[in-house]
Amino acid sequence: MTVKLGPNRYGKAEIRLVRVVRDGPVHHVKDLNVSTSLSGDMEAVHLTGDNAAVLPTDSQKNAVYALAGKHGVGQIEDFALLLARRFVESQPTIHHARVEIDEYAWRRGGPHSFVRDGGEVRTCVVHHDRDGRSSVVSGLKDLVLMNTTGSEFHGFIVDDYTTLQPTTDRVLATAVVAHWRHAGDTPDHGASYERVRECLLEAFAGTHSRSLQQTLYAMGERALTACPEICEIRLAMPNKHHFAVDLSPFGLPNENEVFHAADRPYGLIEGSVLREDAPDAGFAWE
Amino acid sequence: MTVKLGPNRYGKAEIRLVRVVRDGPVHHVKDLNVSTSLSGDMEAVHLTGDNAAVLPTDSQKNAVYALAGKHGVGQIEDFALLLARRFVESQPTIHHARVEIDEYAWRRGGPHSFVRDGGEVRTCVVHHDRDGRSSVVSGLKDLVLMNTTGSEFHGFIVDDYTTLQPTTDRVLATAVVAHWRHAGDTPDHGASYERVRECLLEAFAGTHSRSLQQTLYAMGERALTACPEICEIRLAMPNKHHFAVDLSPFGLPNENEVFHAADRPYGLIEGSVLREDAPDAGFAWE
Amino acid sequence: MTVKLGPNRYGKAEIRLVRVVRDGPVHHVKDLNVSTSLSGDMEAVHLTGDNAAVLPTDSQKNAVYALAGKHGVGQIEDFALLLARRFVESQPTIHHARVEIDEYAWRRGGPHSFVRDGGEVRTCVVHHDRDGRSSVVSGLKDLVLMNTTGSEFHGFIVDDYTTLQPTTDRVLATAVVAHWRHAGDTPDHGASYERVRECLLEAFAGTHSRSLQQTLYAMGERALTACPEICEIRLAMPNKHHFAVDLSPFGLPNENEVFHAADRPYGLIEGSVLREDAPDAGFAWE
Amino acid sequence: MTVKLGPNRYGKAEIRLVRVVRDGPVHHVKDLNVSTSLSGDMEAVHLTGDNAAVLPTDSQKNAVYALAGKHGVGQIEDFALLLARRFVESQPTIHHARVEIDEYAWRRGGPHSFVRDGGEVRTCVVHHDRDGRSSVVSGLKDLVLMNTTGSEFHGFIVDDYTTLQPTTDRVLATAVVAHWRHAGDTPDHGASYERVRECLLEAFAGTHSRSLQQTLYAMGERALTACPEICEIRLAMPNKHHFAVDLSPFGLPNENEVFHAADRPYGLIEGSVLREDAPDAGFAWE
Repeated sequence: MTVKLGPNRYGKAEIRLVRVVRDGPVHHVKDLNVSTSLSGDMEAVHLTGDNAAVLPTDSQKNAVYALAGKHGVGQIEDFALLLARRFVESQPTIHHARVEIDEYAWRRGGPHSFVRDGGEVRTCVVHHDRDGRSSVVSGLKDLVLMNTTGSEFHGFIVDDYTTLQPTTDRVLATAVVAHWRHAGDTPDHGASYERVRECLLEAFAGTHSRSLQQTLYAMGERALTACPEICEIRLAMPNKHHFAVDLSPFGLPNENEVFHAADRPYGLIEGSVLREDAPDAGFAWE
Repeated sequence: MTVKLGPNRYGKAEIRLVRVVRDGPVHHVKDLNVSTSLSGDMEAVHLTGDNAAVLPTDSQKNAVYALAGKHGVGQIEDFALLLARRFVESQPTIHHARVEIDEYAWRRGGPHSFVRDGGEVRTCVVHHDRDGRSSVVSGLKDLVLMNTTGSEFHGFIVDDYTTLQPTTDRVLATAVVAHWRHAGDTPDHGASYERVRECLLEAFAGTHSRSLQQTLYAMGERALTACPEICEIRLAMPNKHHFAVDLSPFGLPNENEVFHAADRPYGLIEGSVLREDAPDAGFAWE
Repeated sequence: MTVKLGPNRYGKAEIRLVRVVRDGPVHHVKDLNVSTSLSGDMEAVHLTGDNAAVLPTDSQKNAVYALAGKHGVGQIEDFALLLARRFVESQPTIHHARVEIDEYAWRRGGPHSFVRDGGEVRTCVVHHDRDGRSSVVSGLKDLVLMNTTGSEFHGFIVDDYTTLQPTTDRVLATAVVAHWRHAGDTPDHGASYERVRECLLEAFAGTHSRSLQQTLYAMGERALTACPEICEIRLAMPNKHHFAVDLSPFGLPNENEVFHAADRPYGLIEGSVLREDAPDAGFAWE
Repeated sequence: MTVKLGPNRYGKAEIRLVRVVRDGPVHHVKDLNVSTSLSGDMEAVHLTGDNAAVLPTDSQKNAVYALAGKHGVGQIEDFALLLARRFVESQPTIHHARVEIDEYAWRRGGPHSFVRDGGEVRTCVVHHDRDGRSSVVSGLKDLVLMNTTGSEFHGFIVDDYTTLQPTTDRVLATAVVAHWRHAGDTPDHGASYERVRECLLEAFAGTHSRSLQQTLYAMGERALTACPEICEIRLAMPNKHHFAVDLSPFGLPNENEVFHAADRPYGLIEGSVLREDAPDAGFAWE
């Protein structure tokens, strides 16, 4: 039997970079987790272990620290693009670079003192290739939301294995993972991120929900409508079940006030919303 | 050889309780992780499997949900005391109860919509025994703090295995775990918690540090001085090392602006501060 | 702006099923984590919250338990196919089912007593659609391997940011994630799994490595060559760096005997190997 | 108010040491996670930040690597004692050392190739002080066990909040954490560990259980009886609930063959067994 090499890539994952900017006694901080991934002329290294086309992952890590030192970080999308372009342009054997960054937020506690803001993590994935094409996907994860009412679920299929009772009032809780694709060059990634995030929060809180799918779609639609710079959004939203505890054996009512928050299993709703005229995604989602 | 039963306890761990209070369209939410632990006449169950003295852990769980429904939750210390007293008073075979609660914070996003505040977790551990004695330890964990300057480390022992260079400017980052013991009955546990937390933050940000131990002690001292209702505080503070990356091979300076945030190993500083006249701790720290 | 619904799916994730088979006093156990995912006529539920086409995720969970009770589990690939077919065939609104299963291994400790085997987790992902097409991908994860010698790395690109020294002897450690696609109907998934796993282990141990890519390719090639029932394999292998500690400041040699095992960053090598005549993958990798 | 420093210690946590012994082409490997902790004359460093009595945690880490290089590792208890003695003896300001080690197991896959054995982790905690006193506690964690029958639970207290039904046949599953104290100098820690572990496994599998407490006690008793070198054992055993799924709505029986393995809450049974004539524990359990 003859076998061949298929798609492949390699890089340095989870480079933990903290970049401080010192403005006199007032400091600013960026706290990132950077992963780089390169592909190109990689037949030889796989088939014979010849590393002549391989830029070591250690050098990729060094480049991340060096470019952070030289240029600062700024918005993570811009820093990721800087890195991806540098990798592709610096070596003829590297045809494609993918850079993924997670950013952890800190609140100011003093001129040079900070408190970690433990909420959602801002993310981006950037691609750049040898033909000069780029893509930028921004996102967030670990955004945990809950509506304690305004959520129904009924009118569903009842099959042989259905025991679930329909409800007109339940808790809807989720941990949002969202990734949205930019249509072109977004001038201000910081402002864009804040707008999209705000849309997601508003649509979650503001939608009277008959299904988590409906809420998901409303969140995507709101973001796309309000933010013309993005053309597609993908959402993954677990339905973190909160079961009203049956207190009747103890002679107590429970008008949806006492819940058991279950770990597993959980529903998992995944969906995308896009503009009718969204340009082709190319390699953006890889 | 003759063997015997030593100290023992049993209970239900990690009861995930979400308690909603509905004030018309405006809801309030408490999100708790409750663990109960009982001890008493438990020779028989260990030696012969006779369960006559055993209140099932399932019943303990039910009691948590039922009492949350009946009385609400309020401050976690008060709810923990309610539970502990109920367990001890309800069964003659139960001589001692320990209740531990973690509380997860949520920010309001609408009248009945909430966003999980991912920062520190508020905690308490309460004991109550058959002789009517109680103890209350409040606390927090996962409070992640960083000073980007104002921290030195020099003048330490240099032994055969010392290669560390002294420094007058380093990043000081930690994830605080703090537990503080109340001297008596604290009337308002919510206000007390906020005060202690504020002291810890202020002392961390405000101390020019020559060692993490010095910062730890300053934090404890500040809390004890400002909050007369507490008599002892125990702190565990990892030194989350941030190493300045050597950029000189790339011809770049690094004036403490580019750091590698390391995972392991980490320093671990543990210490306690207490009032000279602190009453005996009894079983508070068990 | 006009927006539309893009690809979507929903289901129940992480259904923790333990299935015991009682053969008199001798029991057998299967310990699974099952995730189901359905797609089909889901416009209405997203756009208006009309659930008429939705089989609740709770019913999906019930089906998993019921079918496990009725038919037993057997090989996870077969059980996943049973589930996927049942979902698609039972409802006209469901056009496509994806079932993912993780299996945790237990060793026998007695006729009905078991010890969890904490090594790698066996996995599968199965698709089945309305047109009767199916795909089966088997796999494993958390297979942690280490060679303490027989690994080199040199001859790589040296760019402006390269400080890594070439080496002819290093530790090579990784945690393998592997997924392999079956060409058609594999008659005995248990035997096939054992063969592929053995090939991966043998090729890792037996390859004198000049790069982790070379080792990865050798592992894939060995599996494809020895196991004609599979046509493609995808491997993700972190390079879990083990750095030889510099003991020279203490007057001690270190002939690659004392290592610091680092957490992050790590190299990440991802690649696929496939038969020249591999059939089209279709939806197998979704 | 006057405050003072209470108990305190500091050290380096989670030093990840891999020690290879090269016996020609055949290698042997020890994979450890070492945490050191020192205490002594630490008033000054807490109150004023004077580090004159402080051996840096970085030097402690270096000592771990250096002594592993110089002397090898051997049994973890012996290596921990070597380290603890060295710390106390080398500096007059250090009065007490605590060393904790976790050991991860590897199976041989070739002369210098290894497969991580993902089961339980072997542990130890050793103390040594300025007066020459030592203590050794050995242990294990993450030993996951299950009996699929031979476990009952009935005859318990029924109070106002009890809804649990008595059962004569249930699954008993747990993840054992065990720590046992040595009475004196144990000559062969490797053999002792294997003996104790075997006792725990045998007693778990061999005890017809009417409560998890009974099983716990039987495990401790067996170990103490068979292993005279130990005098006390402490066990923490979660009751990892496996709930038989009600399949009657689907017209199916479930004779304890189909279970939902729940995450939280779980029972938690903690207890100790000791010899009647066990010597005083001193600081062994700190």
